[in-house]
Amino acid sequence: MNRARKFYESVGAEAVLTKKSYLRLYLTGFESSAGYVLSDKEKDIFFTDSRYTEAAKKALAGSGIEVIDTADVKVDEYLRQYKQIAMPFELLLYPEYKKFADMGFELVDDSELFTQAMTIKTADETARIQKACDIAEEALKKVQGQLKEGMTETEVAALIEYTMMCGGAREVSFNTIACFGGNASQPHHVPDETKLKFGDPVLIDFGCKFGGYCSDETRTFLFGDDGKHEDFKKAYEKVYEAHMRVLERGRAGMTGRQLDSIARDCLAEADLAKYFTHSLGHGIGINIHEFPRLSQASETPIVDGMVFSDEPGVYVDGEIGIRIEDSCRMENGKIETFMTSDKKLLIL
Amino acid sequence: MNRARKFYESVGAEAVLTKKSYLRLYLTGFESSAGYVLSDKEKDIFFTDSRYTEAAKKALAGSGIEVIDTADVKVDEYLRQYKQIAMPFELLLYPEYKKFADMGFELVDDSELFTQAMTIKTADETARIQKACDIAEEALKKVQGQLKEGMTETEVAALIEYTMMCGGAREVSFNTIACFGGNASQPHHVPDETKLKFGDPVLIDFGCKFGGYCSDETRTFLFGDDGKHEDFKKAYEKVYEAHMRVLERGRAGMTGRQLDSIARDCLAEADLAKYFTHSLGHGIGINIHEFPRLSQASETPIVDGMVFSDEPGVYVDGEIGIRIEDSCRMENGKIETFMTSDKKLLIL
Repeated sequence: MNRARKFYESVGAEAVLTKKSYLRLYLTGFESSAGYVLSDKEKDIFFTDSRYTEAAKKALAGSGIEVIDTADVKVDEYLRQYKQIAMPFELLLYPEYKKFADMGFELVDDSELFTQAMTIKTADETARIQKACDIAEEALKKVQGQLKEGMTETEVAALIEYTMMCGGAREVSFNTIACFGGNASQPHHVPDETKLKFGDPVLIDFGCKFGGYCSDETRTFLFGDDGKHEDFKKAYEKVYEAHMRVLERGRAGMTGRQLDSIARDCLAEADLAKYFTHSLGHGIGINIHEFPRLSQASETPIVDGMVFSDEPGVYVDGEIGIRIEDSCRMENGKIETFMTSDKKLLIL
Repeated sequence: MNRARKFYESVGAEAVLTKKSYLRLYLTGFESSAGYVLSDKEKDIFFTDSRYTEAAKKALAGSGIEVIDTADVKVDEYLRQYKQIAMPFELLLYPEYKKFADMGFELVDDSELFTQAMTIKTADETARIQKACDIAEEALKKVQGQLKEGMTETEVAALIEYTMMCGGAREVSFNTIACFGGNASQPHHVPDETKLKFGDPVLIDFGCKFGGYCSDETRTFLFGDDGKHEDFKKAYEKVYEAHMRVLERGRAGMTGRQLDSIARDCLAEADLAKYFTHSLGHGIGINIHEFPRLSQASETPIVDGMVFSDEPGVYVDGEIGIRIEDSCRMENGKIETFMTSDKKLLIL
C-alpha cells in the first residue's frame, strides 16, 4: 500500500514530511511506534529504527516505498537537500516547529489536506473497519450470554474488552462505557462498582481496533423485564426509529446537519428531542473521532467513502439513558451499516 | 490536593497555564479529559466544562483550587489580565503557541520545571503507584493459575488485562507484552497467535493505572520443566542476581549510569552483558516512561522520592528472552521495591 504518493501529489510542496504515528499508518498501512514518511517528486521513504526495519521492508515490499534505517541515514541530514517542507501544523509541537524554522526551511501546513484525504476510505480501510466491527459484535453477543446479577459495571466493561482481544483485536478504540440503570443517563459515565440487578437497563458503548482501524458501537438492552420500564420502552422505540430512519433516508450529498436533523426530528415527534443532548455522529477511521461531524453545526456534505457513527440517544437525568449506535459508511449514494445485529429492544 | 500553588511558586511568571490532561492530574489530583489549570499570585483555578464541574468541585473542595465552568467564563478572556504566561513548550502545539503569541503574551517555557517537579513523588502519589502494583501482582498470580497449553499470547495478554480491571484498575498503563519461548528474545514483541506449549519460557511485561498512576512489572517463568532449558536457567539466575543487586546496593545520590552499571557489571561476570540490549530502567508515575532514565547516558543522581523500574534482561536472538522488572522507589537513601512476589525462577 502506498497512499504517500497520492498525498504528496495533493500537497504541492517540494517535500512532505510526516512523523505522527497514525498518519504514517494512513500513508503506508504499516503500524509502528517510531519513524517518518518522507515524499518528494521522485520517491517515498519510510525512515524507521532497527526495531521496525525488517518488518517494514516485508510489509512495504512492492509498494514503492523505500525503507531506510535511521542508524544509516539521519532524517535531519537528509532534509538539507530541500528548501520547502510540508507537515501538519495541527500536530506539530512548537519546539519542532522552531527547530525546522531555525534550519531555514519554508514550512507549509498540510493538516487540512490530511483531514480531507483520510475522510474518504479505500476498500482496504473499509475492510479493516468491517473486521473491527465484526469482532466487537461477536464479543457483545458472548458477553450478553455471560451477564449475571451482581457483576459490576467495571467487570462488564473489562469482560467486553477481554472478549474483543480474544476475538482478534489488539486494543480497544476507547475505554469501554458500561452503565446499569440510571447511570446511563450520563453519556460519558465511567464504569464503577454499581452492581447489575434483575430488570436493569444496560448501556454498553464499546469498540476495538483491527489493523489500526476503529469500530464504534452502542447497544442498550434490558437485563430481564421487571415490568417497571414502560417509559424506557417507549423511549427506546423512538430512539430505534430515529436510528433506523437515518440509515434508511440518509443520502450522499446531505450535510452533517441534515442527517442529524433526520434523527432529531424523529425524536421530536415524541417530544424527546430535548433529551437528545449530543450530536448524531462523528467520522470513524484510524481515530475514533475524526472528520466529518454529523451535527447541527456541520455543513459538510456526507459523500461516498465516508465512515461515521449513527448514534441518536435519549437521556433523562438519573433515570433513563438510551443510545443505539452503528458504525456506517456512505456507499453508492446510500448509508450502509457495518453491523448485522438486530437492534429491536433485547430483553435478556 | 493542590500542587498547583507550589508549582506556581517555582515558575516565576505572572501566570501559569496548564492544559495537558496528565499535568492537570498532577497539579490537582483530579482526573478529567478537558480543562485548564491557571495559577497567578492570588489563586489557583480549574476551568472545565459541565461534564466535570460538579465532580471537580467535590474532589477539590478544601484544596484552595476554585472551579469555574467554561460556559460561564472563557479562558482566553480571563487571560487578558496578564502580560506574561508560562506553559510547557514541549507539549504546546504550534497553532496554540501562535494564538497566544498573536494575543501579545510573553510566553515562558515551564517544561523542565514540570519534569523536575513530577520526578519527586509525594506520599499520595506513591500510594497510588503502590495500589497499581498490588493490582498487577494479584492479577499475575491469578493468571498463572489459569494458564493452559494451547492458549495464545494474545489470549494471555488479554486475560492479564481483564484480571487487572476486575481487580480495580481502570486502564492498562501500556499494551501488555506476553511472549512464549523464543518470541521473548524481542524486548518489544507484540503478542500473536503463538500457542503455549509445555516447557515454554513465558515472559509477561504488564501494568495498570490506579488513580491515574502506573505500575510496571515483568516476570519470566517456565510453563512446566521439559528439562531442555539449562542455558535459560543459568541466564535467569544471573538476571535475577543483577536485578537483586540493584535493589540491594543502590543508594540515593548514585547516578542513573551507576545504577545501570551495577546490573551490567553483574551480567558481565557471566559474559551476558552483551545480551543486555536496553537500559536498566526509567521513571514511572502518571506516565509509564518519564524522567529519570537509568542508563549509561544518565548522569542524573537518583534521590529520595524518585520512582523507577529495575529491569535487567538478557536476549539471545530467537532463543532466549529473560527480563525481571519491579517498580521501585528511592526512600531513606535506599531502594525499596513496590512488589512483594518472589522472583526466584518459578516453574508452573
